[in-house]
Amino acid sequence: VAGTQDADARAKLAARVRGVFTPVVTPFRPDGKVDTEAFEANLDLYAEHDLAGALVLGSNGEAASLDEGEKLALVGIARARLDRRVLLVGAGLESTRATIALVRKAADLGADAALILTPHYYKSQMTAEALARHFEAVADTSPIPILLYSVPAFTGIPWPAGLAEKLSAHPNVAGIKESSGDIGLLGRLRAATPETFAVVSGSAPTFYPALCVGASAGVLAVACCVPRTVAALYRAHEVSDHARARSLQQAIMPLAVAVTAGHGVAGLKAAMDAAGFRGGVVRSPLLPVGEAVQRELVALVSRAETAI
Amino acid sequence: VAGTQDADARAKLAARVRGVFTPVVTPFRPDGKVDTEAFEANLDLYAEHDLAGALVLGSNGEAASLDEGEKLALVGIARARLDRRVLLVGAGLESTRATIALVRKAADLGADAALILTPHYYKSQMTAEALARHFEAVADTSPIPILLYSVPAFTGIPWPAGLAEKLSAHPNVAGIKESSGDIGLLGRLRAATPETFAVVSGSAPTFYPALCVGASAGVLAVACCVPRTVAALYRAHEVSDHARARSLQQAIMPLAVAVTAGHGVAGLKAAMDAAGFRGGVVRSPLLPVGEAVQRELVALVSRAETAI
Amino acid sequence: VAGTQDADARAKLAARVRGVFTPVVTPFRPDGKVDTEAFEANLDLYAEHDLAGALVLGSNGEAASLDEGEKLALVGIARARLDRRVLLVGAGLESTRATIALVRKAADLGADAALILTPHYYKSQMTAEALARHFEAVADTSPIPILLYSVPAFTGIPWPAGLAEKLSAHPNVAGIKESSGDIGLLGRLRAATPETFAVVSGSAPTFYPALCVGASAGVLAVACCVPRTVAALYRAHEVSDHARARSLQQAIMPLAVAVTAGHGVAGLKAAMDAAGFRGGVVRSPLLPVGEAVQRELVALVSRAETAI
Amino acid sequence: VAGTQDADARAKLAARVRGVFTPVVTPFRPDGKVDTEAFEANLDLYAEHDLAGALVLGSNGEAASLDEGEKLALVGIARARLDRRVLLVGAGLESTRATIALVRKAADLGADAALILTPHYYKSQMTAEALARHFEAVADTSPIPILLYSVPAFTGIPWPAGLAEKLSAHPNVAGIKESSGDIGLLGRLRAATPETFAVVSGSAPTFYPALCVGASAGVLAVACCVPRTVAALYRAHEVSDHARARSLQQAIMPLAVAVTAGHGVAGLKAAMDAAGFRGGVVRSPLLPVGEAVQRELVALVSRAETAI
Repeated sequence: VAGTQDADARAKLAARVRGVFTPVVTPFRPDGKVDTEAFEANLDLYAEHDLAGALVLGSNGEAASLDEGEKLALVGIARARLDRRVLLVGAGLESTRATIALVRKAADLGADAALILTPHYYKSQMTAEALARHFEAVADTSPIPILLYSVPAFTGIPWPAGLAEKLSAHPNVAGIKESSGDIGLLGRLRAATPETFAVVSGSAPTFYPALCVGASAGVLAVACCVPRTVAALYRAHEVSDHARARSLQQAIMPLAVAVTAGHGVAGLKAAMDAAGFRGGVVRSPLLPVGEAVQRELVALVSRAETAI
Repeated sequence: VAGTQDADARAKLAARVRGVFTPVVTPFRPDGKVDTEAFEANLDLYAEHDLAGALVLGSNGEAASLDEGEKLALVGIARARLDRRVLLVGAGLESTRATIALVRKAADLGADAALILTPHYYKSQMTAEALARHFEAVADTSPIPILLYSVPAFTGIPWPAGLAEKLSAHPNVAGIKESSGDIGLLGRLRAATPETFAVVSGSAPTFYPALCVGASAGVLAVACCVPRTVAALYRAHEVSDHARARSLQQAIMPLAVAVTAGHGVAGLKAAMDAAGFRGGVVRSPLLPVGEAVQRELVALVSRAETAI
Repeated sequence: VAGTQDADARAKLAARVRGVFTPVVTPFRPDGKVDTEAFEANLDLYAEHDLAGALVLGSNGEAASLDEGEKLALVGIARARLDRRVLLVGAGLESTRATIALVRKAADLGADAALILTPHYYKSQMTAEALARHFEAVADTSPIPILLYSVPAFTGIPWPAGLAEKLSAHPNVAGIKESSGDIGLLGRLRAATPETFAVVSGSAPTFYPALCVGASAGVLAVACCVPRTVAALYRAHEVSDHARARSLQQAIMPLAVAVTAGHGVAGLKAAMDAAGFRGGVVRSPLLPVGEAVQRELVALVSRAETAI
Repeated sequence: VAGTQDADARAKLAARVRGVFTPVVTPFRPDGKVDTEAFEANLDLYAEHDLAGALVLGSNGEAASLDEGEKLALVGIARARLDRRVLLVGAGLESTRATIALVRKAADLGADAALILTPHYYKSQMTAEALARHFEAVADTSPIPILLYSVPAFTGIPWPAGLAEKLSAHPNVAGIKESSGDIGLLGRLRAATPETFAVVSGSAPTFYPALCVGASAGVLAVACCVPRTVAALYRAHEVSDHARARSLQQAIMPLAVAVTAGHGVAGLKAAMDAAGFRGGVVRSPLLPVGEAVQRELVALVSRAETAI
């Protein structure tokens, strides 16, 4: 396996992790099964937009509520529909051995890179050293580059100082997705790692300032419902139109908050429905949003769409 | 399935949840596989002690790092070895549907009750209502009584006020294991629920005061290494020998802290090795404890053992 | 000053810190001034109860909203009214020098001991060493024994491991008031310090279990409104009537929660009014409770009073 | 008093809150007294730099450890030395009445605006309504415009959603200093308030992105030791030289972290000493930094200074 890894592969991947990615949802049918047709339809709609690729099996994909068969089926579909866009696959599980196994399967199905969540059940034991060993073991054995993934709102694990710097020396660690919205941290990650190490924002409420401090991409829930506006924000920053970028950031802000901290995946799915995508229902223990929230989301989607 | 549930079954189970339970570890071999022989050996040793039963697949069992085949094999072994003692099985997963499926398999293998962890990945969405729906859906479909399980140190989910009171009305919810060590909460749970609803402590550093405020049992990591002392503490309280109970609580305190908040499952396994049980290695991302900690644990085990 | 300190004075004080203390409120008049008449009336009423003494200028005394003149006047009044009961005075301020000065003034006015809050503004800098230096400097210069005071709900500073053990060697540190309600911590404090070091509970929802693990006293908001019941709880434990102690604990629980975490000092004052004491209004930024809460408190007071 | 307030005064003040402010430290002499000579010397040195003004009696000024006489003396000195630059004075105390009194004295001494910290002792009671009433009462009576001040690292009080929007309608509330470094919050504050309401960053590690999302000024500890670099960062952003602004942000980052979260006021004072200013000693309970940290700070100051 080690033979398939090299710094060149990592650099190539990092160069492709630029722009906006949709962390696609997993639509479910009323009977609780995965609605693959809706999943495909969303990917086809996203293909019409200025997006760099998609993340499958992320937090917004309700990966924690999918079994392995469902996961692999979704990866296969996504690979087929994404054409040459970048396919990121969420493959982090609680144990190192299970993560390694899932990464290999995702690679076999054509994933371009695997997103590896911090293990988090045994919180007090997840020291910088324990996390380093975990990520290194996965990177050592993965046929594809990996991206580190920090999302304290779900894991309760703050990103340890110095860890990204250390791991960025590994030829198979291509970057980090940082979803806390802590722009100071993002800036420190950017400063502490080589340019071939991708620093990716996972927080739409701070996407524009993230780009200002050096993030190269965003994997953003809100892009699943208003991809045009989010892509326009990215391009505005790219051409140094800061006034427009800031304005678009303000326009998506309330929706971005509503579909993450506010109402979670259920809110995101309802907002997708409002925007012409197919969100579908959530899996329990998540609860669907009520009608008042649905109406609020319709208004927020409209505001974000009409900003461009 | 509903036909198999009744308040009588719940009451019978609650009546058996009295005393000390070992949340048994899952020993691993150096090659990473489950060491079933060591697992059996520990259960046989525990059978010589004054224990009410065992919890398999709990947090100390590294359930988060086991695959389903491993889990079911352990349940089967435990059932065979426990004879007529109570077998509790940790069966809570992140999604409701997966939890329901695992509970059924555990029941088929002879579990007396299933311990259902709070789902916790989507923390901000785990409202009292979302948790109530989850627990009710599991209780509605489970062939065996369930016990609620709250362990904020691992889940980041504090137990919501009023939830136990509500769920204690369900004929298939037999109690709660509360592992935060918040004795005020334990007292409120005891006061708010009927006597046929078992309130169980999952925090050894506060086992004696938990008994004082009305807990009927303890599922305690430290019991895996010094079962005799922990059982003696329980009996001392039972016969109102408060001075002895308090003294034994003090004697196990440093070890109890070391094998939970201090050094986690790796510490517990090392302490078991020191006490003549077979802890074995941990699965990554957990790291083994170093030699200095091992020596510290030897001393703490000795202190706890010689207190009686 | 050092000449006035000796371990004997400390031991004498610690021996008197046994039983129930009222952390008396500071009643204000509608014009915002201290209502000294009401303050005196409350102390006179408390004198009829089985109480060990009072704490003046604690958190429930709104010390943070009093100026020095007001503080010293209250200390003087309390000394006169308490007769031979123990007068504890809250004298901890943010800076060491200001604390030292206030302790001396309290001592001059007849305080038996000074309660020294953890400084807390510069939270990340309040290391165990910084806190140790602060407490030692105060103890070194205080004419009267001091009690350490930890209340993380107000300070955000958890009590550091090992600090009480270290400070208990100081001849002028007579004990600690621990108000987090963490019974495991209380037990560890009791085990780590000599018997002449008083371990005092500041959390009424856990007063009975605190006594079980070795606390000698309670300084409890709820004692300001239902002193008879709280004193009865203490005496029940003293004579090893655990069933009665536990029952009384349950009876005061809802009120104890309501007048601390629930509605704060405003709730305590309203509950005092309901119980025939004189709570008076709170100082801004605290807000008075509304009528619905007042009605709730009337019911909770009644429940706590009728339990004996 | 109301007559002295008008929206025009607020707009004028807001227009002057543009650029970089030093939150000046209070140097102490070895005997513990305020070193007014060093205080004046620092102000004179700052006068040579491109700074908009100074904040006296802020968190970095150890206001919590000063008595009122010391505070007023410092305000008087600062007014005299600042000439026509803006003098902000930290005047928030725990009680509303004490805050009102201190604001008036600061205004009499020539403060341009008063910075009002969130009260924070009774944390659970500091609801949005309680904070609104406090700020309104202070604004209603203040002869000078006030700035709201949120610093959760010291207060433990997160800024409530909607509060700034509400208070920005008050003619005497001129803005907010937000010191958490949460750029998403800063963006929401900017979007929710009129342009005549100043949004000020109090977090140097995120100053550049704060400017990107619309902050008009920074009150930044690091400006006390490397004012030239911080001022250059501000000007670079002002002329849309984003590359330079980002680069300067990276250059000050390690020092900015070291003199706040890292080593606090003691670190800031040591860094000032390293940079040719006069930091002086800290007041207990703060502890001085050791020699290793001093050497680290020398290097970080040098890096920040040589970046321009």
